[in-house]
Amino acid sequence: MRLVCWRCGFQTEYRPGLYVCEHCGEPLLVDSDFRTSLREDGTLIPRELRLVTLGEGRTPVIKSREGIYLKLDYLNPSGSFKDRGAVTAVSEALSRGCKLVIEDSSGNAGISYSAYAGRAGIKARIYVPYDAPAGKKNMLKALGAEVVEAPTRDEAARLAVSDPEGCYVGHRINPYFLEGMKDLALELVRGLGEVDYVVSPLASGTLLIGLWKGYMELVEAGVVKRVPKLVAVQACGYESLTKYYKPCVSVCRSRAQLPDGIRLTDAPRLQHVAKILKELEGLYAVIDDELAVPYLRELWREGVVAEPTSAYGYAVARELMKEKSISGKVVVILTGNGIKHVSGGMTI
Amino acid sequence: MRLVCWRCGFQTEYRPGLYVCEHCGEPLLVDSDFRTSLREDGTLIPRELRLVTLGEGRTPVIKSREGIYLKLDYLNPSGSFKDRGAVTAVSEALSRGCKLVIEDSSGNAGISYSAYAGRAGIKARIYVPYDAPAGKKNMLKALGAEVVEAPTRDEAARLAVSDPEGCYVGHRINPYFLEGMKDLALELVRGLGEVDYVVSPLASGTLLIGLWKGYMELVEAGVVKRVPKLVAVQACGYESLTKYYKPCVSVCRSRAQLPDGIRLTDAPRLQHVAKILKELEGLYAVIDDELAVPYLRELWREGVVAEPTSAYGYAVARELMKEKSISGKVVVILTGNGIKHVSGGMTI
Repeated sequence: MRLVCWRCGFQTEYRPGLYVCEHCGEPLLVDSDFRTSLREDGTLIPRELRLVTLGEGRTPVIKSREGIYLKLDYLNPSGSFKDRGAVTAVSEALSRGCKLVIEDSSGNAGISYSAYAGRAGIKARIYVPYDAPAGKKNMLKALGAEVVEAPTRDEAARLAVSDPEGCYVGHRINPYFLEGMKDLALELVRGLGEVDYVVSPLASGTLLIGLWKGYMELVEAGVVKRVPKLVAVQACGYESLTKYYKPCVSVCRSRAQLPDGIRLTDAPRLQHVAKILKELEGLYAVIDDELAVPYLRELWREGVVAEPTSAYGYAVARELMKEKSISGKVVVILTGNGIKHVSGGMTI
Repeated sequence: MRLVCWRCGFQTEYRPGLYVCEHCGEPLLVDSDFRTSLREDGTLIPRELRLVTLGEGRTPVIKSREGIYLKLDYLNPSGSFKDRGAVTAVSEALSRGCKLVIEDSSGNAGISYSAYAGRAGIKARIYVPYDAPAGKKNMLKALGAEVVEAPTRDEAARLAVSDPEGCYVGHRINPYFLEGMKDLALELVRGLGEVDYVVSPLASGTLLIGLWKGYMELVEAGVVKRVPKLVAVQACGYESLTKYYKPCVSVCRSRAQLPDGIRLTDAPRLQHVAKILKELEGLYAVIDDELAVPYLRELWREGVVAEPTSAYGYAVARELMKEKSISGKVVVILTGNGIKHVSGGMTI
């Protein structure tokens, strides 16, 4: 396996724990292509990166009453799309003998790492903001993880990176985590053929970059003609991408409370996200709870138990379709299972 | 479509709302065979019984560290295996013009019916025992269902059946609900080939009878040689099957509190369950929370987020394997998603 820096082009052989470019500091990518990735088992994931499994991936797609395709990625084993990346990241950690993996998370990524660490028979220590949803913290503990609370999401990240014990496997910079996301592209192609737009919430960018990486390999292999236009959605008060990319929609009346999965003020891969969006003529939207909540309710009333963060993507898709800014085959990635919230007492 | 009574042999053509034998009062079965069932889309479900979908079925199977195959059926759209039956039952209700479906449920079946009713654009009214888990009641409301609380699970059933409005679609007697369960057999065969034992919790018997019915059709079609031995698991204080079948294991120190999915004192299809177990030389076990909880914890520590009811099945499989009462390829059906409990505050 070789690693490559998307920004400065630096290349290097795989070295245990090397996540960041030694020249420019950007998080690295695995230098994969479809020849090394497209596997007999019908996935894009390098075989050496699936040493454990909990049955992740191959989630259903359904068409909403409004004609939008919903990828129910919250039906992954631990209840979020993060399982796709946790399986590859934990496998890489296992391959270098880690007995304790360390992650910072607002919830889903920590739950996912805890589940896969448990599956692999190793320990997980998860740094979370103190105000992460109680249900998510409960799940971390039930999965056997050690939970460390930090004052903010950003502080949780700082503490996790500087923890001297164990292996830091943080999804925000981990190149192997991204590899696990690629199958999402493959599954969309298999289920829906060519699509026009893929809409998803944006926090650390792992979903968007992984999707782009998967699609690039499929284009290279001639499986599809083009990468769909990607639409990234952030929440009011946490619009970290505006530093690098201009939103086409900004509905921002008050700081978002609900979408815990995207309440981050910064992330290491945002410049790369901006570059990808620019190349693909992708779109970027910032909205608030007031706009998103009726769409969350709409999803649930249609039997789709997505979490608030996922409804942010759906809301933007619906709004952009209404105003005819996007059309054709539109897919929304529903990223997290709303049971985590609603079982905890949230009213929808 | 024809309906048949397993006990007295009475046969009749499909009539809207006819669930129970006019001669002997037993709940009817759809008189299907593999020729009418095995479909181009690769399922055993009659096409007229899939008018709505939320992407149910095709759930993963993983192998536990202890060598038991775990069918993660809690990864169905609304978080339980009941989605398999709700899709067919709601479709039948739709086909006869129902605008309101009525169900009695301890939680999962109601959630499932609410989700599919929402998907179909009709109303659901769910009768639940007042002590159903709060997280499950919250989910029902979030899905837009009308929730009616009853003093007990049995009283919820009585009230639902006698509700004069809408269509009673109760999973406990609904023949179409059972049809939706058959694919579980097909998926086990496709994923694992021939298996020796299938272990599952037993409440109303829909899972067990549906599994048996699916397997019978596959045997008839020559897809597999035999039906696996089925193992039914009930909870201490709710061992309703003992009237008809002798348990091979009974560990009963105190009345079970945790497995809300199997805390029923009676069910209409138990005599049929007993007949099936007898014919297949199946097994029946009754255990308590004290035995089940360490296994619930074992599952979660391995990243498997099953609910307590599901852990009852796993516990029995582990115990029977330890004492060498069962061996070979053993599958446990994990029926409900534990997120519904743990997000609500349960400590594991």
